[in-house]
Amino acid sequence: MIIDIHGHYTTTPAEHQAFRDAQLLRLADPAAPPPEPARVSDDQIRESIERNQLKVLRERGGDVMLFSPKASGMEHHVPDAPTAQAWARASNDLVHRVGGLFPEHFAPVAQLPQTPDGGLDGVIAELRRTVTELGFVGCNVNPDPSGTWAGRPITDESWYPLWEALEELDVPAMVHVSTACNPNFHTLGAHYLNADTSVFMQLVSADLFERFPGLRLVIPHGGGAVPYHWGRYRGLADMLKRPPLETHVMKNVFFDTCVYHQPGIDLLVRVIDLGNILFGSEMVGAVRGIDPQTGHYFDDTRRYIDALSLPAEQKQQIFATNARRVFPRLDARLRARGL
Amino acid sequence: MIIDIHGHYTTTPAEHQAFRDAQLLRLADPAAPPPEPARVSDDQIRESIERNQLKVLRERGGDVMLFSPKASGMEHHVPDAPTAQAWARASNDLVHRVGGLFPEHFAPVAQLPQTPDGGLDGVIAELRRTVTELGFVGCNVNPDPSGTWAGRPITDESWYPLWEALEELDVPAMVHVSTACNPNFHTLGAHYLNADTSVFMQLVSADLFERFPGLRLVIPHGGGAVPYHWGRYRGLADMLKRPPLETHVMKNVFFDTCVYHQPGIDLLVRVIDLGNILFGSEMVGAVRGIDPQTGHYFDDTRRYIDALSLPAEQKQQIFATNARRVFPRLDARLRARGL
Repeated sequence: MIIDIHGHYTTTPAEHQAFRDAQLLRLADPAAPPPEPARVSDDQIRESIERNQLKVLRERGGDVMLFSPKASGMEHHVPDAPTAQAWARASNDLVHRVGGLFPEHFAPVAQLPQTPDGGLDGVIAELRRTVTELGFVGCNVNPDPSGTWAGRPITDESWYPLWEALEELDVPAMVHVSTACNPNFHTLGAHYLNADTSVFMQLVSADLFERFPGLRLVIPHGGGAVPYHWGRYRGLADMLKRPPLETHVMKNVFFDTCVYHQPGIDLLVRVIDLGNILFGSEMVGAVRGIDPQTGHYFDDTRRYIDALSLPAEQKQQIFATNARRVFPRLDARLRARGL
Repeated sequence: MIIDIHGHYTTTPAEHQAFRDAQLLRLADPAAPPPEPARVSDDQIRESIERNQLKVLRERGGDVMLFSPKASGMEHHVPDAPTAQAWARASNDLVHRVGGLFPEHFAPVAQLPQTPDGGLDGVIAELRRTVTELGFVGCNVNPDPSGTWAGRPITDESWYPLWEALEELDVPAMVHVSTACNPNFHTLGAHYLNADTSVFMQLVSADLFERFPGLRLVIPHGGGAVPYHWGRYRGLADMLKRPPLETHVMKNVFFDTCVYHQPGIDLLVRVIDLGNILFGSEMVGAVRGIDPQTGHYFDDTRRYIDALSLPAEQKQQIFATNARRVFPRLDARLRARGL
């Protein structure tokens, strides 16, 4: 079995983006009535999925994809909380319908209605709605809702209510930023990777998992810069009198395989314990082209895992076993189907 | 020959930091006279170098180190330009004296008096002073003088006068941030690597080197996250309709070897053309401990190059040949010594 834990609904019917555009327009005139979420038919959803993510999933031999709303579209930097809540709700309802139409292939993961002020009541309410009412198996948490890093590190107490809720629900979070609001940071080529790197170092510097031992965080994009600089992090942990990474942060942190070339995946598997690696592709996402050096899609990360000289059982860890352990609600769904 | 292109004077006599402290105190009372740079004796400098960088350089078989003031101490976020100029001047005069006391081993590299407002007149004046009067071979340019990424990408026109001056002087710049002024970014564990990654993507997105074909930029810390995500960058360049990296950015950009474990160096050499890799250690710097897995210092990067299965000539490219090509004023100094 192959479970891709990092897929986004980047191909929603145009009506969904039109709803978002109407939301943003309306912020200039708060007296106007809020727009209604788009009416999207099942056929529209089916078509948008069958021609894109499901087609690619099948071509690459994948079975299940954890499926969340488009990351760059979360736009948590927009400060109005009711707007954020309506947007997250509409986006989550769409990925929920994808999961309903293709229950064998897509398991929904939530966008949360974060805002720059960091208020968490609506965030936790939407998390509970998606997990307990709709059966979502995970969520994405933006460590930088402002888009300009104006907020506090995720180890700050202000975040604790969210970590408590995740621990209680036994749901992991992928720590994933949205669009950068600073022209120094290209969203796909810098902001995403910087966030991954920064969050890892926040975790090294603090004791978040002593307080929340059941919290599990997935750092996407192969952990940003971290595995490439693994010696630096081991050395910094030592210099800062922190526990070794393996017995501290890495008990609760997982990296995905969204690294788009063989040497990167080789390094990831060489330095990071296999139990901490989860298969992911980020498709259809950041990088959509074909690598002229290989003739295959850059984001066809399955090929890089297949090419590793590891026993089949260890590849299966990366492809599925780890994901079922880290995402227990996914495991329950699969078991209910006899898998 | 082994040339370490990335060393900082992190071990200055305490009087130098006391001068800085006095500068910062005086900013609260601008009517007070500015403090005078510290009086530091040759013996003090000799001792601070012989016990630290020179000792380590010798132990590791290094010959020459490009030596700049402490990166985290540049503190370009302090807005007062005369303060920045006096601080850069004092710091540069110290590394110049190191170069004078140990001419065989240290070649000075300048700190520039950047400030958050981005004004470049004093910056270029100090660059010219250090290069043309004092014989410096390079400089460090901070792509984020604010420490909060409040400024513009280095491809913005506002930076052009600095790039023009560097091109005219035929001096390369290492693009190196100073202390982070945002609690989300640990200076050594996130801000440095994020800056490397962000600047690379700024260069991919623009055409800086079409305008300044003679400009050469060194991105330190092994290029941040870039080599690990080389496939992502090749794919993004393609998606953004940019030229291939090899025929565009990499004609003018170089990565150092400040990556503190064997798998990281192996990856760097596997994906980046050898002509773009410059030996560096960042010692005595970010990570000072001994790796319990190897029994050697994390930042003893020579060991990682030695362990590569490359012909001696190619290792020599990384250790010295490339540096002499990229830093022509260093090459001239070495030639003047018959090397």
